[in-house]
Parts: sequence; C-alpha cells; structure tokens
Amino acid sequence: MPRAEINIDRVLHALGDPTRRAILDKLSEGPLSVSRLAAPLDITLTAVVQHLQVLEESRLVHTEKVGRVRTCRIETAGFSVLEQWIGDRRSMWERRLDRLGDLLAEADEGE
Amino acid sequence: MPRAEINIDRVLHALGDPTRRAILDKLSEGPLSVSRLAAPLDITLTAVVQHLQVLEESRLVHTEKVGRVRTCRIETAGFSVLEQWIGDRRSMWERRLDRLGDLLAEADEGE
Repeated sequence: MPRAEINIDRVLHALGDPTRRAILDKLSEGPLSVSRLAAPLDITLTAVVQHLQVLEESRLVHTEKVGRVRTCRIETAGFSVLEQWIGDRRSMWERRLDRLGDLLAEADEGE
Repeated sequence: MPRAEINIDRVLHALGDPTRRAILDKLSEGPLSVSRLAAPLDITLTAVVQHLQVLEESRLVHTEKVGRVRTCRIETAGFSVLEQWIGDRRSMWERRLDRLGDLLAEADEGE
C-alpha cells in the first residue's frame, strides 16, 4: 500500500461513492470485520473488498488482518487532507475579504 | 435553480473533477466573468459553462448576469455542507474514543 501518496483527488473520488460513505458511517461506530461490515450493505463481499481498497488507498480506512479475520477501522489521515484543502480555500477567501475591507476603510478615510 | 436541494452527494460529485477544482481556485482570488475564467483553462467556453452549472447546483459558485456579462464568484454554502459532513463524523469518532477512555478508566479503578 503506497502510504505516502495521498491527494485530494483520490480522497474526493473515494468519498464520491454512496456505498463507500455508508461503509465509513458504519465504521464510525467502531471497528468491524469485513464480513460484519458487508452483511447489512446488501452487496457482494467482493464489492465490499474493492470499496475498502479504494478507502484504504485514500487513507480513510485502515484494515488489518489478524489470523483469518480482517478488521477495518476509520483512519483520519484522508479526512485531514480534505479538511486542509477546505481550510486553505477558506483562508484565501477571508484574506480577500479582509483586503476588501481595508480598501473600503481607506476609501472612507479619504472622503 | 433549485436552491433548497443541496446534499453531500452533489457537492462531492462537483468537487471530484479537477477542472471544477481549478475553477474554484481561480475564483478564490476574486469574482471573474465567464470568459475571463475560461481563458487560462484551455477548454471550450461551453465546457466551462457546463462545469459552472454543476458548481452552481451544489452551491459552490454563484453566477449573476448583469447586461451581457455573467460574473462568477465563490459561494460558501456548498463548502459548509462538506464541513458539516466531516464535522459530524469527527464528533462520532471522538465520542467513541471518549467512551473507550471511560471504559479503560473504569477497568483501571476496578483493579
């Protein structure tokens, strides 16, 4: 699993699928084995494993095999990438609004 | 434009496309006309208009036509939906970790 490469493109692609979001919602309640995760989702085990792989590659989920059971849990790294991406944009808009405010204040003083 | 219907599915789909993210990045610097927005993107004006429609439906962008010029600017509502979605999940995980902490503390006291 390439742990270093985690980008916004991959995270947004992973989160764009409703089944993958349902998996994340299930795991938000606590770690689960792959088979217990699959049971209420009404899709094949193979499909669940494929979704898990996408989620793992974007570091939204971490899975670990102990003996014959693979356990899945939420990993926060992928969510942090998304939060960082939104935060960067928010600060850009806020800086822009601040500059606008300064310009308006200057115009006011100049009157 | 249906302003009421704004959901995480739509927002994530809109953000999943790199050209649409490039449009948002351009607009983060300030409002632009559709033609000035299209110029550096190296895609047709029709394609830009289609991307803008998706962004507008997810309330990530607001456009307004004054005379013959349509001006585009960032709208924060779509981003707020995404932040809320992440925030809800984060608080779920934190509550779960708190409960786990309480259980460990109880186990510790019981020793």
